[in-house]
Amino acid sequence: MMKQITSDTEYRDELKARGVLPEGFRTGFSKLFFIPEELDTNTEMPMNMSLILLDKPTDCFAGVFTRNKFPGAPVLLCRSRLESESFRGIIINNKIANVCISSGLEDAEAVLSSAASLIGCDESELMVASTGVIGWRLPVTEMAGAIASLVDGAVSDEECNAAGLAERIMTTDSFPKLRSRKVCGGTITAVAKGAGMIEPNMATMLCFIMTDLDLPRETLRGMLPSAVSSSFNRITVDSDQSTSDMVIAVSSKLKECSDHKAFEVALQEICLELAEDVVRNGEGTGHVMKVRVSGAESEEQAAEIGKALANSPLVKTAIAGNDPNVGRFVSSVGDYCGNNRIDLKPGRTEIRLAGEIVFAGGSFVLDSDKEKRLSAYLEDCGMDPVHKGYPEHEKSVEIDINMGIGKFHATILGSDLTHEYVRENADYRT
Amino acid sequence: MMKQITSDTEYRDELKARGVLPEGFRTGFSKLFFIPEELDTNTEMPMNMSLILLDKPTDCFAGVFTRNKFPGAPVLLCRSRLESESFRGIIINNKIANVCISSGLEDAEAVLSSAASLIGCDESELMVASTGVIGWRLPVTEMAGAIASLVDGAVSDEECNAAGLAERIMTTDSFPKLRSRKVCGGTITAVAKGAGMIEPNMATMLCFIMTDLDLPRETLRGMLPSAVSSSFNRITVDSDQSTSDMVIAVSSKLKECSDHKAFEVALQEICLELAEDVVRNGEGTGHVMKVRVSGAESEEQAAEIGKALANSPLVKTAIAGNDPNVGRFVSSVGDYCGNNRIDLKPGRTEIRLAGEIVFAGGSFVLDSDKEKRLSAYLEDCGMDPVHKGYPEHEKSVEIDINMGIGKFHATILGSDLTHEYVRENADYRT
Repeated sequence: MMKQITSDTEYRDELKARGVLPEGFRTGFSKLFFIPEELDTNTEMPMNMSLILLDKPTDCFAGVFTRNKFPGAPVLLCRSRLESESFRGIIINNKIANVCISSGLEDAEAVLSSAASLIGCDESELMVASTGVIGWRLPVTEMAGAIASLVDGAVSDEECNAAGLAERIMTTDSFPKLRSRKVCGGTITAVAKGAGMIEPNMATMLCFIMTDLDLPRETLRGMLPSAVSSSFNRITVDSDQSTSDMVIAVSSKLKECSDHKAFEVALQEICLELAEDVVRNGEGTGHVMKVRVSGAESEEQAAEIGKALANSPLVKTAIAGNDPNVGRFVSSVGDYCGNNRIDLKPGRTEIRLAGEIVFAGGSFVLDSDKEKRLSAYLEDCGMDPVHKGYPEHEKSVEIDINMGIGKFHATILGSDLTHEYVRENADYRT
Repeated sequence: MMKQITSDTEYRDELKARGVLPEGFRTGFSKLFFIPEELDTNTEMPMNMSLILLDKPTDCFAGVFTRNKFPGAPVLLCRSRLESESFRGIIINNKIANVCISSGLEDAEAVLSSAASLIGCDESELMVASTGVIGWRLPVTEMAGAIASLVDGAVSDEECNAAGLAERIMTTDSFPKLRSRKVCGGTITAVAKGAGMIEPNMATMLCFIMTDLDLPRETLRGMLPSAVSSSFNRITVDSDQSTSDMVIAVSSKLKECSDHKAFEVALQEICLELAEDVVRNGEGTGHVMKVRVSGAESEEQAAEIGKALANSPLVKTAIAGNDPNVGRFVSSVGDYCGNNRIDLKPGRTEIRLAGEIVFAGGSFVLDSDKEKRLSAYLEDCGMDPVHKGYPEHEKSVEIDINMGIGKFHATILGSDLTHEYVRENADYRT
């Protein structure tokens, strides 16, 4: 799907090439230091604040938020701000997610009101996205104090383009995530952060999509949910959805969009590419799995079967060990279908790995040569699970399951289960 | 729930004490060596065959089988044999699961017919339970040849009581699983094998329940499913159900059962204890989690929420690291409820760890002392994930979640996620 990238330099050039901001957008950045109330210590912690600012307010903006039933204050606030007439900008901070805190909403509003006066807009035109530790309070005073430089930066800072933004919203990410398309004479550029979840939700998934193409507000709001559900809702690293995930799309409306269909396709492609970037950057991910389930009775069923396989610890560990263990594919699919009363027809199920048939007609289709070949394939798709920077490659393990009971399909992106994953998630405090 | 066992000797004595066979039962054992067709090698593999034989046929027997949609031939065969008038015995083999093989049913029947002629019963009175590698053929000739000694053993072999049986059906298990009750002047004794799944389903869960208490066939068949669903169906090590899991219950009918209710309670207790043994023996299990969900809208909902938490890799790794990471409890419950349209009320949810409240009223209830205390508690509940024999203790990590939206509850038994789990499951071929 993407061009093969072989070196950090190449990847950086690629990002610069992608990193054009659509007209009418600016981004600002400021780093502040604070002492968390919750820690009885004098050591300061650094917090990144980023700002996405429009030159003029727009009425064309949309948002999709986590379905987690313990949403953070920023999610609650942004959801309600979708009702506003117009949108001017969003402030993004890391370090503290502002979740499960009684004063969460006040704190977020306090930050935004001081931003509103500096920007010279109504508070209702601003949003906030926070990611980091759950259960801590935002350092409201320090954040308010830092907003001036944030706004100035957005006006002056030349080199802080989309690539800079993608870099600066990173938390546990090991590389910036940026995708862009030229379409209908305009631009869609999107940045994302997310790398699986370590520490209490330190790596929430955030995505900001910017375009200068003019669409009716309701058209954009119709397109975004399906773009998200076929991309970010089809990835599974920890099988958990964080309390703060959000995707925001905004248009500066400076260019007419002649072809809504083309726009929607580009939007979906960008979301899918960013979703894959997030999986590839998953904590301790050594392999990206692309599980395509076809011949299902519904798209939802196809997605659920794919997730069952991609979330099976037995499948994940086998892939981590470069072991083409088809018995585990079969078992996880059979288990899910049995528990969900899906009328699976063993004789009709066909499973492929790397395009090669490994299960058909109710039996395995394997021989020792094929197993060697597939094991080598898995090894070739592997990455160093200790992500030190840009990904070595963008290969995925291709698993195809044809259920043979319907005509719907879905693709799930998942990760394997490595020692590094356990290390990151079990040992980080010890 | 169980008495604290502190040494291997104690555990062995305990097993001997438990290990009384109900009247009317015999068990036999024989070890054979064979060369698997599927391997181009001359090295012989050992296979254990065990036999549970009744002195006389009985009409009082029941079975519950895996819901996996790719069931093995033994499961298919036993299911159909439930229709038989009477039951005489069951042959259990390891090494080969006889799953996904075109000749699977023939092969199983061939083994049983040679057993029938030696025992002097009808083939329809016999069952077979197989566990081991998926996709290989049973060594029918060798197995048929070994049956004579199996049957003789069942007649003569004195010391092969239930404890011997429990030991001999082990595959990857590190300790024998045997539970027994005296009830209504009779005995219920059950053995199980299972230790999570490593290698293609090498560790299927099998359970054989024997009693001399006389119940109407339909009464036993009414009791078994609910006993299984509140025990074996409430454990989750890999979250996968194997293709060969089965629970068989048989009565020799030699003693009148005066109190059906008492029998049912004892049956449920035994199943629950064996289920916990299986989790404790789980591959790479360092902690057993006991997740009790109450205040749910239905028992099924309570069980599903408990499984969502017990299967969350983030929760499992936190427990493995002795980290009372309540943020992950909250996130996994919130995620499940959001994805399944459960109307969770964050303000009403109450979460306890080791009996201590850690989340209530929508916020965390934590301080650094409590975190230290809980971390020490987790450490104390820990076991060496490299199981070398009998368990060091029978402690569990107690997690209680009160949803506050209904009056139903369920308890899920789960395991943590350790380096040893990954090693066993990812590296065993490398």
